Amino acid sequence: MSLRGGIDLGGTKIQTVVVDDDNRVLGEARHPTPLKGGPQDVADAMAAALREAAKGAGAEAGDLAGVGVGSPGAIDASAGSVGQARNLPDWEGVFPLAHALSDALDGVTVKLGNDVSVATDAEVVLGAGVGTRSLLGVFWGTGVGGGVVLGGRTWDGEGAAGEIGHMVVKQGGRKCPCGRHGCMEAYAGRGAMEAHARKRHEDGEKTDLFHLMKKHDRPRLTSGIWSRALDAGDKLATEIVDEAVAAIGTGVASAVNLLDVEVVLIGGGLGLRLGEEYRVRILEAMMPHLFNDDRPPDVRLAALGDLGGAIGAALLAADR
Amino acid sequence: MSLRGGIDLGGTKIQTVVVDDDNRVLGEARHPTPLKGGPQDVADAMAAALREAAKGAGAEAGDLAGVGVGSPGAIDASAGSVGQARNLPDWEGVFPLAHALSDALDGVTVKLGNDVSVATDAEVVLGAGVGTRSLLGVFWGTGVGGGVVLGGRTWDGEGAAGEIGHMVVKQGGRKCPCGRHGCMEAYAGRGAMEAHARKRHEDGEKTDLFHLMKKHDRPRLTSGIWSRALDAGDKLATEIVDEAVAAIGTGVASAVNLLDVEVVLIGGGLGLRLGEEYRVRILEAMMPHLFNDDRPPDVRLAALGDLGGAIGAALLAADR
Repeated sequence: MSLRGGIDLGGTKIQTVVVDDDNRVLGEARHPTPLKGGPQDVADAMAAALREAAKGAGAEAGDLAGVGVGSPGAIDASAGSVGQARNLPDWEGVFPLAHALSDALDGVTVKLGNDVSVATDAEVVLGAGVGTRSLLGVFWGTGVGGGVVLGGRTWDGEGAAGEIGHMVVKQGGRKCPCGRHGCMEAYAGRGAMEAHARKRHEDGEKTDLFHLMKKHDRPRLTSGIWSRALDAGDKLATEIVDEAVAAIGTGVASAVNLLDVEVVLIGGGLGLRLGEEYRVRILEAMMPHLFNDDRPPDVRLAALGDLGGAIGAALLAADR
Repeated sequence: MSLRGGIDLGGTKIQTVVVDDDNRVLGEARHPTPLKGGPQDVADAMAAALREAAKGAGAEAGDLAGVGVGSPGAIDASAGSVGQARNLPDWEGVFPLAHALSDALDGVTVKLGNDVSVATDAEVVLGAGVGTRSLLGVFWGTGVGGGVVLGGRTWDGEGAAGEIGHMVVKQGGRKCPCGRHGCMEAYAGRGAMEAHARKRHEDGEKTDLFHLMKKHDRPRLTSGIWSRALDAGDKLATEIVDEAVAAIGTGVASAVNLLDVEVVLIGGGLGLRLGEEYRVRILEAMMPHLFNDDRPPDVRLAALGDLGGAIGAALLAADR
């Protein structure tokens, strides 16, 4: 039996898994992403988290048949490098992540992939997308990432397909963290939602969001904080999440009108946290904009949960 | 040498061609689409137009190796039927068009395809899209149709992909002829543009559009009428076309953010009539919304002109 490692590199956390030939998770570890330093410090933190997962599986890093990484930024899989990973500390240029990580892990082979693509792939191979011909993955978190699977294969375009968060839902609409106007993510990305909530709170609107954030000792409005505020009937939180759902419904319906996919898969931190109720609400928000509304796509929740990205990364290291 | 026929069935005209093995056009004919009657009358008019094209090529209908048809509506290629062709007279149900046309053409084999798909295919095989891996065709006419080519092959989804005209560009925006709100076609479809111009003219705004229409004895605002009004500096026409360009730029940029295609191809009656100046303007309208604006797709005009749809239809009848 051989073991493989998978690392999901996020802006706030590094999730690692070690899986067997059947992709069963034998060990896992989650470490915070370093907020300071540079790419080498991130690579060291990734290696430490993977060693811990290996230990949980009763193995050493050197025993692994390979390690896969799902990363944000511009991935050059053949060169093993990552550039423009703006959510990561001091990561403006191109960094040879595969090489650095291999060095830190006793020479194990490291393969890189796009974080959203590997998470989508994991759902298609092992999760809620098994057996589907065409699927649109919608990862609702700090941003809104998209994974496009057509004819059973990931569609990367010229290398950067899947930017569903930057499909426009409103010409002349709200400013997006990307600097453009009216993107889905300007309304639905957790980062943009927090900035919007903060501004309106500072302008005098009442909300418990920031009180909850302090009470639970969070550095920002996490998915859990939003969920708690919704449960408590917080008016501003409810309004902002309603706008997010409308934006996702509009943008996803546009994508479905263009691609006519069989399945839409909802994942990401907020998507998973808000769960079934919001899966239904997203479908409802799509309906008024679906051209073929007599046969809407099957909207499903991602099945692999928080570990999906890391499991998908481990798939990169498999002989397939 | 064998000859094939191609028929582009539109809401206002039936364009036919007869081509040789190298897809050279040896004969062509254009007839108006019957405004009254039903599907059988349309089939008869199609047969008459094809016979005329065959004559131009020095042949009879019975000599043809096959005939292809690009049709609007819901195409069932294997059954040879067309349903829901709402732009055609009394065509609500499903009609066995391939069978009816074969009967009217001495038993020649007839194959059906979607009008936008075959026009896109023609450009990929013979026109402005030769050699491209991935392409988005944007057919700007009475509506706005889309053709999606990925990895060198047409992407049909579950049978109805390519509804780029019904991608949403503005939540809560203008009502579309499809009944929904904020679709690209609500601003950019020639049908919607005419309805909007008529309403504003009736509300008292000055425009020469309807005067030009009568002067040139047109039943509606054709692409030629819009073009003449723009050339004359008509204020309302300019404003409405500007809104159309903005909507196309926004929707196409959204599609490119999702699919990261190599080429965007502009065709359709208005697209071809307005030509190079508006190809550039559409690209300019895309730029503020393109996520990878450092490498925009190559925006090109369709190369096969008015005959593209019929030539693409003839490709359906080729052994490929």
